[in-house]
Amino acid sequence: MKLKTRILGLEAGGKSIVVLNREDADDLSVSSLERVRISKDNKESIAIVNTTNRLIRRGTIGVYEEVRNSLGLEEGEEVEVEIAPLPSSVYFIRNKLRQRKLTYREIREIVSDMVRGNLSEIEIAAFVTALHVFGLDLDEATSLSRAMVETGNTLEIDRYPIVDKHSIGGVPGDKTTLLVVPIVAAAGLTIPKSSSRAITSAAGSADRMEVLMPVSLSIDEMKEVIEKTNGCMVWGGSLNLAPADDMFVRIEHPLSIDPLLLPSIMSKKKAVNANLLVIDIPTGRGTKVKTIGDAELLAKDFMELGHRLNIKVQCAITYGEQPVGYAVGPSLEAHEALSVLMGKVDVPDLVDKVTDIAGILFEMSGRKNGKSLALEILRSGKAEEKIREIIEAQGGNPEIKPEDIPIGDETFTVRSEKKGYLLWINNASLVEIARLAGAPKDKGAGIRLHKKIGDIVRKGDPLFTVYAEKDIKLQRAIDRFRETYLLGIGERREMLIHEVKEFPVPKKTFMLER
Amino acid sequence: MKLKTRILGLEAGGKSIVVLNREDADDLSVSSLERVRISKDNKESIAIVNTTNRLIRRGTIGVYEEVRNSLGLEEGEEVEVEIAPLPSSVYFIRNKLRQRKLTYREIREIVSDMVRGNLSEIEIAAFVTALHVFGLDLDEATSLSRAMVETGNTLEIDRYPIVDKHSIGGVPGDKTTLLVVPIVAAAGLTIPKSSSRAITSAAGSADRMEVLMPVSLSIDEMKEVIEKTNGCMVWGGSLNLAPADDMFVRIEHPLSIDPLLLPSIMSKKKAVNANLLVIDIPTGRGTKVKTIGDAELLAKDFMELGHRLNIKVQCAITYGEQPVGYAVGPSLEAHEALSVLMGKVDVPDLVDKVTDIAGILFEMSGRKNGKSLALEILRSGKAEEKIREIIEAQGGNPEIKPEDIPIGDETFTVRSEKKGYLLWINNASLVEIARLAGAPKDKGAGIRLHKKIGDIVRKGDPLFTVYAEKDIKLQRAIDRFRETYLLGIGERREMLIHEVKEFPVPKKTFMLER
Repeated sequence: MKLKTRILGLEAGGKSIVVLNREDADDLSVSSLERVRISKDNKESIAIVNTTNRLIRRGTIGVYEEVRNSLGLEEGEEVEVEIAPLPSSVYFIRNKLRQRKLTYREIREIVSDMVRGNLSEIEIAAFVTALHVFGLDLDEATSLSRAMVETGNTLEIDRYPIVDKHSIGGVPGDKTTLLVVPIVAAAGLTIPKSSSRAITSAAGSADRMEVLMPVSLSIDEMKEVIEKTNGCMVWGGSLNLAPADDMFVRIEHPLSIDPLLLPSIMSKKKAVNANLLVIDIPTGRGTKVKTIGDAELLAKDFMELGHRLNIKVQCAITYGEQPVGYAVGPSLEAHEALSVLMGKVDVPDLVDKVTDIAGILFEMSGRKNGKSLALEILRSGKAEEKIREIIEAQGGNPEIKPEDIPIGDETFTVRSEKKGYLLWINNASLVEIARLAGAPKDKGAGIRLHKKIGDIVRKGDPLFTVYAEKDIKLQRAIDRFRETYLLGIGERREMLIHEVKEFPVPKKTFMLER
Repeated sequence: MKLKTRILGLEAGGKSIVVLNREDADDLSVSSLERVRISKDNKESIAIVNTTNRLIRRGTIGVYEEVRNSLGLEEGEEVEVEIAPLPSSVYFIRNKLRQRKLTYREIREIVSDMVRGNLSEIEIAAFVTALHVFGLDLDEATSLSRAMVETGNTLEIDRYPIVDKHSIGGVPGDKTTLLVVPIVAAAGLTIPKSSSRAITSAAGSADRMEVLMPVSLSIDEMKEVIEKTNGCMVWGGSLNLAPADDMFVRIEHPLSIDPLLLPSIMSKKKAVNANLLVIDIPTGRGTKVKTIGDAELLAKDFMELGHRLNIKVQCAITYGEQPVGYAVGPSLEAHEALSVLMGKVDVPDLVDKVTDIAGILFEMSGRKNGKSLALEILRSGKAEEKIREIIEAQGGNPEIKPEDIPIGDETFTVRSEKKGYLLWINNASLVEIARLAGAPKDKGAGIRLHKKIGDIVRKGDPLFTVYAEKDIKLQRAIDRFRETYLLGIGERREMLIHEVKEFPVPKKTFMLER
């Protein structure tokens, strides 16, 4: 059937979608969400069909940008449209819905059809839901990791060993990466670190790094930086390392499910050809993993999956019941990290965590006394020197000082109404308030704690300060703070967290960080 | 935040969707698939957010027709946009993903948010997938049935009993309804029959009826027809009886799953206030239900669900291994049904099934010898008289004769290459070929069988004829026929259906009929 192109002027989020008048669709024997093949000259493209009764006239085909670009279509141009068979990946997804285990070949086809825009949101949502409900076994996790690597870019560097670290996320203010990378690189190890932006948190590693240097590098630029400095700190999104993951995240986020945690992380490590990897699993109330037992089970899966992908994995189960350091929010965190690298301030828990992780990587690569070595590199100023090299190589200002980093000037400080000890912090509420204040979009927004768990608090002491770039966002954050239990102050053995007098409406907090 | 309206000129399939520039979305702290509240003067509307980097400029908001209409927006008009909380129905869906049983109140909220366009395709797909995977228990099925009734129109007629029939579908050529309705109505019972169009079949009851009379009636028109004639034959889609069902079907179809079969059917029967109901369950190879045992289990669920909804249900487990009668396709079937009503032809299996179903309804409503009574009404010409009354009341031509019904004039007759008996028919291939020939869209397209299972076949005998309105569609059907095993001819005790010499690629046939 010949149809005239109508450019819709809209993107479909990477999917190839066209809109047909229902009568034309019926004539083609194609229903909504089935596929058509569109041809023009000797190019052709498969697209998913939406139908409409109005707005798209008979004889025309509405095309989203993805289809327009793939065929180079112009308004009014005539194309040939015919029914196309369902891709076999759709049959494989249907099998998964019937609880069948999927083979590598089948998973590979699902992932590559998804990346090419050949699967609808409904199909991807059903697939992700089925993975969540049935779980993935390690064979499927391995296949998914491989498929995600194979449908994206890879980094090829002729060095050994290549080391890497990753946190599964869930603890606010975790700027560990900003210190581990320069420490490890300063010791001569190669660490091609790519990070994601925040999804549900107040700052992702890429957001923090971006305060200090450009992070949207191409694979080639990344390689150049590593050749020069042994390390880098780049945003994974611009590298296209495992583009399938972004598509999965888009579905997982609204559903608050995260069945792809393992393959998602491991595919990105495989894509940079890492040999030695530390996975940080923050643990405790308010993190993704509530108990040490659960953390150990997850660690086992990471190690086994690493083994199958030929990556040696060790895990660090870390304390996650309060923010790491004092700062939460991109600029506040970058400020804190840079200050620690320069030896200007002492942030004991941050330094402890950083030297633990760097230390494990040192020992995995054959060096002795890893933690001391890491501490020595940090104290000696070599780590600061290294981060400045990396900043310069990535096109930033290597002379940057903490005071050059702009912090939001709308502030609000909460003071204690009683005395005692800081007993607990509700991470989820803290993140929510930092986000309402503007983080991570407004880089200068966030929260700086003045006290941490176990600290003595006197009446009137400042507990934390909220920073925002815009007054309206500060107000929004303050309003929310007033309805929330953010932290607890009391005597050391005080047991009550809060009383529940009416039926509560629990809203499970969900952390989807990659 | 104030944004300028940009009318996209597209429908979003009933969902309230807006498109924001990513920067604006970040400033609102809203991610893709979260919600915003849009206000103009004192009207407001909740919409699901899509984001884009291009095409929608900062400061503008792209609106689909659903949102445009609900607020009466014009191009360039300024609206106030702010973040809106997630509807609680989304939390309930997330609970279902964690295998929690849902209460009536929760299901009611999911269904009504869906009908109002407040749920995204991803959320609906996850919900339907979870229902498929975990199954619905009878409490949930009851809640869903009620919620679907309450979010749609209902038919209020002051008569008792109101009777109805429904087939779960899966057997081609099943024009039973076209004969049962006039027989039952002629006996003085009230039967407000609404039917659906074909989804995956070659003809739905509404498609067949439409050959004889208009079927897109409003609830009020339907009521008027019933008051006048005791019966009617209308398309459910125009009545809006359980609009949630259409939305579920839109998701179920591409996934080839059908978890809502029971609540979907029962909600429509409850919406017309049926008191007595026969459910026809066609059984056997090539239908939805393969064995009599499975059919009995399904029957039990229908009866129990009916009990909870205060509808007395009986089930008819029927033979479904070949088409009912000889004709498949809207016009061919209407032709056959009318001819039988007029006593012009004898179609034994059709007449047997029709009088069984009508007979059960007669006995359920207290009459004796139901089947004989049904046969008598059919033979006497009273059923023909009644259908002509209904045709007239619905605005059709009451004088219509079978030869007035146009049948496709592109035909192709397949003749037997050997002699023996017709041993089996592959219903799925038959339907596929009828659809390729143009059915149900081209009403005159379809297949007429010349032989049925058990008939003697001589070499050269015509087996069936394919009818199409367009040559190209006929060709498509013939091409497909040549690659398929459509029917088997052989000696009575011949066992082999066909040899499998290479790895087969089985494509499970899926029938989603309502």
